Amino acid sequence: MDILIKDALILTQDARRELVRGDILVQDGKIAKVGGSIRAKSEEKIDAKGKLAFPGLVNAHTHIPMSLFRGYAEGMHLHDWLEKKIWPAEAKLKPKHIRAGSMLSILEMVRSGTTCFNDMYVAHMDEMCKAVLETGIRASVGHALFDLVKKTDAKDELKKGTSLAEKWSGKSSLLKISMAPHAPYTCSDGLIRLAKDYARKKNLSFHMHISETRKEVFDSLREKGKRPIEYLDSLGALDSNTVLAHASWVTKRESALVGKAGASISHNPVANLKLATGGICPLHEYLEAGANVALGTDGTASNNCHNMLETMKFAQLMQSHLYWDPLRVSIQNIWDFATINGAKALGFNSGSISPGKEADIVLADLRSPNLCPLHDARNLLFSLHPGNITDAIIAGKPILREGKFVSLDEEKIIVEAQEAADDLVSS
Amino acid sequence: MDILIKDALILTQDARRELVRGDILVQDGKIAKVGGSIRAKSEEKIDAKGKLAFPGLVNAHTHIPMSLFRGYAEGMHLHDWLEKKIWPAEAKLKPKHIRAGSMLSILEMVRSGTTCFNDMYVAHMDEMCKAVLETGIRASVGHALFDLVKKTDAKDELKKGTSLAEKWSGKSSLLKISMAPHAPYTCSDGLIRLAKDYARKKNLSFHMHISETRKEVFDSLREKGKRPIEYLDSLGALDSNTVLAHASWVTKRESALVGKAGASISHNPVANLKLATGGICPLHEYLEAGANVALGTDGTASNNCHNMLETMKFAQLMQSHLYWDPLRVSIQNIWDFATINGAKALGFNSGSISPGKEADIVLADLRSPNLCPLHDARNLLFSLHPGNITDAIIAGKPILREGKFVSLDEEKIIVEAQEAADDLVSS
Repeated sequence: MDILIKDALILTQDARRELVRGDILVQDGKIAKVGGSIRAKSEEKIDAKGKLAFPGLVNAHTHIPMSLFRGYAEGMHLHDWLEKKIWPAEAKLKPKHIRAGSMLSILEMVRSGTTCFNDMYVAHMDEMCKAVLETGIRASVGHALFDLVKKTDAKDELKKGTSLAEKWSGKSSLLKISMAPHAPYTCSDGLIRLAKDYARKKNLSFHMHISETRKEVFDSLREKGKRPIEYLDSLGALDSNTVLAHASWVTKRESALVGKAGASISHNPVANLKLATGGICPLHEYLEAGANVALGTDGTASNNCHNMLETMKFAQLMQSHLYWDPLRVSIQNIWDFATINGAKALGFNSGSISPGKEADIVLADLRSPNLCPLHDARNLLFSLHPGNITDAIIAGKPILREGKFVSLDEEKIIVEAQEAADDLVSS
Repeated sequence: MDILIKDALILTQDARRELVRGDILVQDGKIAKVGGSIRAKSEEKIDAKGKLAFPGLVNAHTHIPMSLFRGYAEGMHLHDWLEKKIWPAEAKLKPKHIRAGSMLSILEMVRSGTTCFNDMYVAHMDEMCKAVLETGIRASVGHALFDLVKKTDAKDELKKGTSLAEKWSGKSSLLKISMAPHAPYTCSDGLIRLAKDYARKKNLSFHMHISETRKEVFDSLREKGKRPIEYLDSLGALDSNTVLAHASWVTKRESALVGKAGASISHNPVANLKLATGGICPLHEYLEAGANVALGTDGTASNNCHNMLETMKFAQLMQSHLYWDPLRVSIQNIWDFATINGAKALGFNSGSISPGKEADIVLADLRSPNLCPLHDARNLLFSLHPGNITDAIIAGKPILREGKFVSLDEEKIIVEAQEAADDLVSS
């Protein structure tokens, strides 16, 4: 279906980072023309007068089924919360729960301007893949692998990841499968090597938690004689298809390793603050090293939402705080992290509104008191909220139009998510 | 006008901090009954099925006309930004600008659940008072006083504050006038004493910036031999009608002075991060000392929005970060800061949904993907956003109903704000 978006103010995120006024023509799911007045026969016209168009945001690290635990058992320390609440509830996870939580989170993401996400979770991942295809969102999905905690055999554990890849890779241009060993402290070196070898052979993304807490770093130094990213590097796991979640407690030597490999990090500021990890990811050092910096919300249990607009603001402000300098990481940097860098991290041809790119486009209504006055649209980053998002188009298909989902039954998905959540937390 | 709000989930913030289901009866602008099924003849029924009712939020420190500078000249260091951009623009401020910025900010506040604010600004404050009465929001408003910077006579400067008070005090139960000497480094000790004496005599609130930056503290120690709050204490300016904005760079001795006086602080976490002050206000110490802690957004030029829901999340997460402990300042604390404590700071009989209180009530639609599932409504603090707010009632009068302003012309106010902003920043 062709779409002509008329009269928008366009935050293009193109190579020149231009802000332009005018139309956007979408053909065959891709962006064909941008700016000025475009004449075309189109099946669907979208009036974007008074609206800001920007590339759909990319959430580079999350666990979407965990939305069922949003606001469950707050006010506990991490260890108690996991042992007494989350793990017992997770032990009950059935396919219907994964489906319900995934569908709920996808609604929430689209409503807050996110059109692509990167996930790893622990069970029934077919249901997440189905939810991606059913909703039409873009995603990279992996089965979280652990062999140390569960004391399983590395090769058996690996199969969870490879069978997901075999089943779903190539099924849709919207869905990629990643290899996702959970973390260096839950995976053996054998499993990490096997997962990376498989990812390299099949050209898949490799997604892993790393250096989230100070304890993890100290344990790694004591047990392996290396800091976590040095250890990953020694296993040959760093390259341009690697996405490291958190990567907060790092030395300059480690950020340099990430940059040299052309790897990506997903910085998740809200989750870091909420779990009181104490670490603030040194984004300036990563940028200097040439690393690809993206942003994520992390799962809702540690956030508690999938609001990337909020994450973008937290990211910029925490960097201002970290460096005592509001200019070290700029507003333009943050837009880059959440759009083109996120897409690059996951290997999608999206993240900017420029010809040839996948048409993942979001509209926000500028006629909102929090977005007025308009001085420079990029700076609206600090006041945009999900209530301003009216439309979302993914791969050229309108998913949200004028605040309503085109074909998803939002009410039903919410009711089913509540039922699934009640079921999980009942004793 | 009587109002009967039917079938809400009510986050009461009453003395027992109860969550109850049922109705709320509002009579003569006050809350008459709460909970269960209430039968009454009412002029207006509000169906709140599927909605959360909570006390309207109190923004305890802001400068609302500055919304005209939202997103203007970002990416500059503070000194350049003030000297090259803000001060030249502020020098052009006419009554119409104060009106336009005030009206815009009030719309933004109401849409994000705020029903009361505490302001000080530099010019044409009659226009802000008029905007308060015209819109029906609740506010404490002061003329910011400076005698050191402008080298004016303290008594002449004081008159700006006292004449505002003489003109507007008692005009409406919605509007209070405060005495607002800007800061210890912009006001002489004489002006501070005069302002506090007048406030005490007339039972007015006393609103002042303090200890926002490390430099301010060091300068104070060097010039006065005292830290800023010690200095204020020595002038007799601390009591239960005092609201200190920021108060971040403080010693335990200073937080104890604030607590002993029963004074209030307005913590403004977003502005502190944005201006990269480096200071995180030690709320746990203030609470231990018995101080009244409230929250504010600060002006939009340093935020860039009036979204108290966001400020509440920043506040909790920054305290988790500061103490490396997510429980030191609880979610319940944060609700208290933004409701009952804010009302107490400004001397209003509001901030909870309990009989006898002013009826300042906000409704949020729980049938939103970011507010599902419902485990404990208090924990929705971390995912609530302005798009969820459907209704706002202030002093028993519906201002916002089902997402629309009842009698304010939102479109016109936005257009006028854009014109006023363009006028200010044009050269």
